[in-house]
Amino acid sequence: MSDLFLREARGEATERRPVWMMRQAGRYLAEYRAVRAEVDFLTLCRTPDLVAEVTVQPVRLVGVDAAILFADILLVPDALGAGLQFVQGDGPSFRNPVRDRAGIGRLAKPDVGKALGYVFDAIRTTRRALAALPDPVPLIGFAGTPWTLAAYLTQGGGSQTYPHLLAWSYRDPEGLERLLSLITDVTIDYVLGQVEAGAQAIQLFDTWGGLLSEERWRGLAMPHVARILEALAGTGVPRIVFARGSAHLLPALADLPAEVLSIDWTLPLSEARRIAGPGKVLQGNLDPAALLGPVDELERLTARLLEEAAGGPHIVNLGHGIFKQTAPDHARAFVRAVKELGQPR
Amino acid sequence: MSDLFLREARGEATERRPVWMMRQAGRYLAEYRAVRAEVDFLTLCRTPDLVAEVTVQPVRLVGVDAAILFADILLVPDALGAGLQFVQGDGPSFRNPVRDRAGIGRLAKPDVGKALGYVFDAIRTTRRALAALPDPVPLIGFAGTPWTLAAYLTQGGGSQTYPHLLAWSYRDPEGLERLLSLITDVTIDYVLGQVEAGAQAIQLFDTWGGLLSEERWRGLAMPHVARILEALAGTGVPRIVFARGSAHLLPALADLPAEVLSIDWTLPLSEARRIAGPGKVLQGNLDPAALLGPVDELERLTARLLEEAAGGPHIVNLGHGIFKQTAPDHARAFVRAVKELGQPR
Repeated sequence: MSDLFLREARGEATERRPVWMMRQAGRYLAEYRAVRAEVDFLTLCRTPDLVAEVTVQPVRLVGVDAAILFADILLVPDALGAGLQFVQGDGPSFRNPVRDRAGIGRLAKPDVGKALGYVFDAIRTTRRALAALPDPVPLIGFAGTPWTLAAYLTQGGGSQTYPHLLAWSYRDPEGLERLLSLITDVTIDYVLGQVEAGAQAIQLFDTWGGLLSEERWRGLAMPHVARILEALAGTGVPRIVFARGSAHLLPALADLPAEVLSIDWTLPLSEARRIAGPGKVLQGNLDPAALLGPVDELERLTARLLEEAAGGPHIVNLGHGIFKQTAPDHARAFVRAVKELGQPR
Repeated sequence: MSDLFLREARGEATERRPVWMMRQAGRYLAEYRAVRAEVDFLTLCRTPDLVAEVTVQPVRLVGVDAAILFADILLVPDALGAGLQFVQGDGPSFRNPVRDRAGIGRLAKPDVGKALGYVFDAIRTTRRALAALPDPVPLIGFAGTPWTLAAYLTQGGGSQTYPHLLAWSYRDPEGLERLLSLITDVTIDYVLGQVEAGAQAIQLFDTWGGLLSEERWRGLAMPHVARILEALAGTGVPRIVFARGSAHLLPALADLPAEVLSIDWTLPLSEARRIAGPGKVLQGNLDPAALLGPVDELERLTARLLEEAAGGPHIVNLGHGIFKQTAPDHARAFVRAVKELGQPR
């Protein structure tokens, strides 16, 4: 197996920087759309053979150095009994939003091995599919942070401002703390189960932490993220944290027990390196919109990204998920540019 | 007239800090909902007597020190021919999105006095309504920044990521520049018209500048904002810039020719003051969600905000628009706390 990604994630010396892309298994690939034409999103998540197929697609078709399990962060609140549904055109929503202590009482801590066993099955199947490739790559597992999951769970779906979560955080912080602790407990079982099933790294996605000031993030969100990361410490797998819209949170993010910080596209990696300190592996952060422009400009920006990140270990990635409008040739051009230019760091 | 707001905005000494709230004329007030029960949103915007009524409501009912014209930033692209519509439950959208140079060709630079004359009429009517109050306050006019208006105009409505605008910015930056310049030209006529009609300050809203890195914001968005602000220089009215999700843009925002920087809720004002320098009046930035919590906590947070902003001129405000779920009593408690505690700075 190519362990380039894992060695870079541990801060070891490598011959070149590895590259993968957030949301690399997705709608920009015709081969993914062909699978989705047959099954809905949740059925796909719950069918290990199909998960393996779409997870491996970008490795085969685009040449990335790591695979990330095809799944959704909202499978965890679904396992708590919130009733996840994907209504065509409206994105994800929950039949049973949770907005107070009574709502927490209607959730139940599941036996994760049963409620989310389909994810662990998918990881085992995917590892076998990856091992059958001519040049196998590692598999990354993932979960949402408790604050981010609580944002969707309290709102009942997506929002730009999450007033239900924010109102709760001021009205009854102790009650909200109970919800976050419950999500954290389940998430710990979930990520440990992923590693046991074969996930070789874990990335936590904090999509909505940026709704908080640094002080409030440290108080409300960070302890739960830290507890999940600490639970993973004994497994030895690299731990990655991605927080979107988080330039103002970077000093706090750097205090987390994670080997890798994944930086969004709004901050130069040189600046992120300065704030995060030399002890962190950085991941990121090409603007995913750059893949929508001409290839020569994309190559220029990729070369510049590699320069900006010089001075420390670096996993090349986008600063956010790849847009569904991306031409697969442009995704390949990005990966190729890293493979050609990514030697020195 | 109480000129507290205007003197603070010019950095002059005042007896206490003024306070107003973004989106203070809005759905959290039963009196506003009563007006909206009779007319749709665009009809309200186009009816000067009703604009005056809802603009004055928070002055009468909540006691704020400035009024902000009730209008919408999307009236400008509507005047360009994009066909603004508000479909129930879906938010604003455009019948004619603009995504390339051909799309620009289908727009027309309007005679602003005709196309947006209803806004100027509303300003004159509102100024008269304000003058009839026992304790009149100044009227703030506003507009969206060209980058933000282009985000909605290219997408055809709201989005979290605005792929059409971002794709255009990489694919054909010169073409996009033409669109931004056209919007800028019209916006200059629009804000000058507002001042001529009686607006006593102008705030520019940059809702989506935070989609860009500082370098890209300086290249793509900033020159147009600067041109609008420079056009206003001769009028003598205070110029305010609000950018959401912009902690990483603050050094660039501080370089704009504006008297006042309005800071979102994610950055302490002490930190904003350090980055922006002593020459700027700061506006903001209580987390609007704090108004959803208990009043004693709200008062504590307001007192802390006043302390954090010490050391320079400060217009007290929220860090974003007031939530529609806010109890009017809590809005009043916020304003009262500033009036009681806002003396020293």
